[in-house]
Amino acid sequence: MFDTRIAEVAQGVTARLQAALAAYPGQIGAAMAHATGGGKRLRAFLVCEGAALHDVDPVAAMDAAAAIEAMHAYSLVHDDLPCMDDDDLRRGLPTVHVKWDEATAVLTGDALQTLAFDLIAHMPLAADRVVTLTAGLARASGGVGMVLGQAMDIAAETAATPLTLPEITELQAKKTGALIEWSAQAGPVMAAADTGPMGAYARALGLAFQIADDILDVEGDEAETGKRLRKDDDAGKATFVSLLGLDGAKAEAARLTDSACDALAPYGPRADALRQAARFVIARQS
Amino acid sequence: MFDTRIAEVAQGVTARLQAALAAYPGQIGAAMAHATGGGKRLRAFLVCEGAALHDVDPVAAMDAAAAIEAMHAYSLVHDDLPCMDDDDLRRGLPTVHVKWDEATAVLTGDALQTLAFDLIAHMPLAADRVVTLTAGLARASGGVGMVLGQAMDIAAETAATPLTLPEITELQAKKTGALIEWSAQAGPVMAAADTGPMGAYARALGLAFQIADDILDVEGDEAETGKRLRKDDDAGKATFVSLLGLDGAKAEAARLTDSACDALAPYGPRADALRQAARFVIARQS
Repeated sequence: MFDTRIAEVAQGVTARLQAALAAYPGQIGAAMAHATGGGKRLRAFLVCEGAALHDVDPVAAMDAAAAIEAMHAYSLVHDDLPCMDDDDLRRGLPTVHVKWDEATAVLTGDALQTLAFDLIAHMPLAADRVVTLTAGLARASGGVGMVLGQAMDIAAETAATPLTLPEITELQAKKTGALIEWSAQAGPVMAAADTGPMGAYARALGLAFQIADDILDVEGDEAETGKRLRKDDDAGKATFVSLLGLDGAKAEAARLTDSACDALAPYGPRADALRQAARFVIARQS
Repeated sequence: MFDTRIAEVAQGVTARLQAALAAYPGQIGAAMAHATGGGKRLRAFLVCEGAALHDVDPVAAMDAAAAIEAMHAYSLVHDDLPCMDDDDLRRGLPTVHVKWDEATAVLTGDALQTLAFDLIAHMPLAADRVVTLTAGLARASGGVGMVLGQAMDIAAETAATPLTLPEITELQAKKTGALIEWSAQAGPVMAAADTGPMGAYARALGLAFQIADDILDVEGDEAETGKRLRKDDDAGKATFVSLLGLDGAKAEAARLTDSACDALAPYGPRADALRQAARFVIARQS
């Protein structure tokens, strides 16, 4: 069920992004298309599934799904820059600054962030809900959310002492958790419904996702993940694996997955695809 | 009158930005404050003056003014990066990547763009007008607006032939004109009034502003402008001065200033501060 649904969402969100990017000319447009062209589309899936659970118009939901994938893509393009993580491979393809150049990568990320807000602002949805989505997205992505998490991550690389478990948990809640939480809550926000269950689900899922990422960095295959691995260990960085051990990290990810599934109880079996998504997150190989 | 009003606006917008940035911790918060700490505040003035002409709540207007200054500051931080214009001086102070480092500059610009949308989303204003302001700001700043203009500017540096007058006019309308136009139209948008006169004023003003910038680049004093000059000439780039000659550029700037002032006719003498602003733009020394 999850496999079919996320494949459908991926197709829909790619089409929505292509339609939006048709208005973007030249090299910037090509680089924006390159940067948004792939990925698991987990965030888009969370938006669409949360929207379906609340009987939200799927067209409006797809705009929000495209917006969060544009926001996520912007963060990857900037994170991959030489002055940041210096990655030359992403989703099995050259990163934007490798395929073009650094200036193009900076501008492409900038334009993708703007596109995210642009897509939300043009959603076929009551204005007060558009404003709530916009305010939430701004809070999740900027200098008190994702960008702050990224800055904490960079600062940790040169810090005298490695991060503790509470510190790395807070860092990840900002760096990757905030956008995942926005995605899961977008459906109830669009329906003006209670965001509590989807919020609790997303916070557990987001942390499980990051722990799984740390496990993949140790156990994964570069060809299968499409990105460079074993960087954290090389850099001597604290990770969930270095702090909890491999078995401990796996146990914590499994515990968080159960917790994510439990949070969906109010929705009953209608939320089974979201439960499968949580199981997928810790079982994935890329 | 203009002098007093822009000084008042500058004080208000700086206070509003400081209040917003109090929530931003650590180095990112410090760099965001550094990047938004100065400047002429012309865009903020346009927002506040346009709002006053339409009897808009000055508190809401100041939020929009702070938003456009955050957006403008983000564009400067990224434009100053080594991979872009490579500037080490801005408003007489070291640029963000010089005072801190490149990663901090990328993230600071990213967070300032988000802050702009955050400020708009939290304005004390009817939701439909917030959405209109957000949609307009996204259109003005991203890959079909300011960022596209910046990309065109970078592409022009390595192009085989210099830009023509229509090409450079289009480039500047996107690169600097779009945010100036949004600023001038924010007041009528907030009041749900006709944006026509302020739009026409802003398009003429924006172009005059850029021509004045090109003139300053030739005639200006580095100590007074607080930034590096004579870069365009060194790079062999087409400018309004290289295309029109110094006298021709001055005449065109004067003609555009008259045109900007004429566009304000529906407002009568209430718009005199905006007319003075247009005169200031071509007479300024920094």
